[in-house]
Amino acid sequence: MKEFELIKHFFTEQNVKRKDVLLGIGDDCAVVSSAENQSIVVTTDTLVAGVHFPLGTSAKAIGHKAVAVNLSDIAAMGAKPSWISLAITLPEVNNEWLTEFCSGVFELCEYYNVQLIGGDTTQGPLSITITAQGLTPEGKYLSRSGAKPGDWLYVTGELGDAALALQHHKESLIIDSDAAKVIQQKLDYPKPRVLAGETLREYASAAIDISDGLLADLGHICQASNVGANVVLDAVPLSDAMNKSQLFEDAINFALNGGDDYELLFTVSEDNKVGMETALSHAGVPIACIGQMNASQTISTTLNNKAIPINNSGFQHFTTNAITNK
Amino acid sequence: MKEFELIKHFFTEQNVKRKDVLLGIGDDCAVVSSAENQSIVVTTDTLVAGVHFPLGTSAKAIGHKAVAVNLSDIAAMGAKPSWISLAITLPEVNNEWLTEFCSGVFELCEYYNVQLIGGDTTQGPLSITITAQGLTPEGKYLSRSGAKPGDWLYVTGELGDAALALQHHKESLIIDSDAAKVIQQKLDYPKPRVLAGETLREYASAAIDISDGLLADLGHICQASNVGANVVLDAVPLSDAMNKSQLFEDAINFALNGGDDYELLFTVSEDNKVGMETALSHAGVPIACIGQMNASQTISTTLNNKAIPINNSGFQHFTTNAITNK
Repeated sequence: MKEFELIKHFFTEQNVKRKDVLLGIGDDCAVVSSAENQSIVVTTDTLVAGVHFPLGTSAKAIGHKAVAVNLSDIAAMGAKPSWISLAITLPEVNNEWLTEFCSGVFELCEYYNVQLIGGDTTQGPLSITITAQGLTPEGKYLSRSGAKPGDWLYVTGELGDAALALQHHKESLIIDSDAAKVIQQKLDYPKPRVLAGETLREYASAAIDISDGLLADLGHICQASNVGANVVLDAVPLSDAMNKSQLFEDAINFALNGGDDYELLFTVSEDNKVGMETALSHAGVPIACIGQMNASQTISTTLNNKAIPINNSGFQHFTTNAITNK
Repeated sequence: MKEFELIKHFFTEQNVKRKDVLLGIGDDCAVVSSAENQSIVVTTDTLVAGVHFPLGTSAKAIGHKAVAVNLSDIAAMGAKPSWISLAITLPEVNNEWLTEFCSGVFELCEYYNVQLIGGDTTQGPLSITITAQGLTPEGKYLSRSGAKPGDWLYVTGELGDAALALQHHKESLIIDSDAAKVIQQKLDYPKPRVLAGETLREYASAAIDISDGLLADLGHICQASNVGANVVLDAVPLSDAMNKSQLFEDAINFALNGGDDYELLFTVSEDNKVGMETALSHAGVPIACIGQMNASQTISTTLNNKAIPINNSGFQHFTTNAITNK
């Protein structure tokens, strides 16, 4: 099958047709327009086979995840996702694989009314790069740099399950089959916190999505905001699957350093705390207050009100354990 | 070197600082805004090592080309390039290579006042995906679909040199060293026709950039516009390097089927012909009228006023000769 037939066949038939897309797939560029008084947020994430997902991951999960990790970045800015461009490099054309991959991509796109507006298909080792864009009222967005000493530190959802699933892949931990399914789902089908992000735009002082691990991403907020933080380990939300299968020490390590959670980590001033909690509760988003920002410029952790030392390192590419870690 | 240091070191120091970039590299997303009454054009192109450039291509040329092929798509829409996102997958971190690569990226960006607003660095087989964006007056852009029977067919620059250089790589043709340098430069450092594209926005009925070869890309215009075309082979512009080193038949084959030219192919109505020629002449853009559109829905070629058969196939990925062809 030739490239152009391939593009036409798999990528042009989608159900989302946005009014702000003047020209979609099929020309040298797509043409879009933003409404007056809107800003556009732009993010790019690449998934490389064997690095960002285990070889053998289902095509549908890869499609889902490639979109999800990008929408998660949009969510962290408090924006509403609108358009994606998809560059896919494939070792060969496999119709069944592509059909599954596209179903993963388009299901998530449809759910969030995101239109695929273009991309590129090339031959080579499997990798997917998506550039996602979103819209937000002009100049109104969340960043990493607005946290202040005294702000409360929150996280959505539960942490560490994706990392636990990855570890289970590698060395078959003792995990009952129901729990194994739950954590596998978390690894393969992360849910971007789009609704939470949009809601938080009105309340949060800083936000980031947790892709590199709680400590690493909290470090990014601290560095960008020039503040420190204390994390109350007792308050870090863990899933039933995690609690049932892991000792607390191991569980908290997955949660702190695991990565791939795609939950939102955010800070809120004392004044906005109640309003934020009410709004997210109405939106049905589970959250936990896991600490507080301070002026120390370091990250500390406490357990049972006692300070304990931490290993402050999330996932980093290009270190010796990059491939085994993620 | 860890990923984050790498990003900071190589990609955040750039000279272009656009006013419409509210937030650049370093957060979950960049934030940009378009002026009122503007549309945004978006394109994505991936270069895979060994497929889109020969192994051994200089890092600077790879950086240049990755940007150039995207700006060429923006030019084909008649838009002005504004922002790029860069996803680079590298087998290892090599400071010297990255410095050269960045010099190729940023030189071209600076020339066109394009700001790098974000991206991703990952570990894996070498490949580069750029998403480029550009701005154009609201709803005003060139597409492939506006050509009408009777419109004149034009091309910028000279065709076939990049394909000739690639062939020279593979089997050492008899080409004198000055000519070899010229064509190598065309292959490694294609010049996107940005100024021509912006000028043509007022005059052309359809446009495309020639990446797959003249015949293949003309085929895209014909298909999208539901028309046919006759190409006058005598009029196809060839370089001195091409004319001196190749028989006409070989030269014309490089020009028709070669690909990688990144010249603009466009159609102009009889009414706009003189205005377009004057405007592009003032802009210093070399052009040649190489034929005329018709209602036949096929592409024909003539030489010395006689019809001759053609091999209507440009470069296509995923065919057996994909890797050797480009």
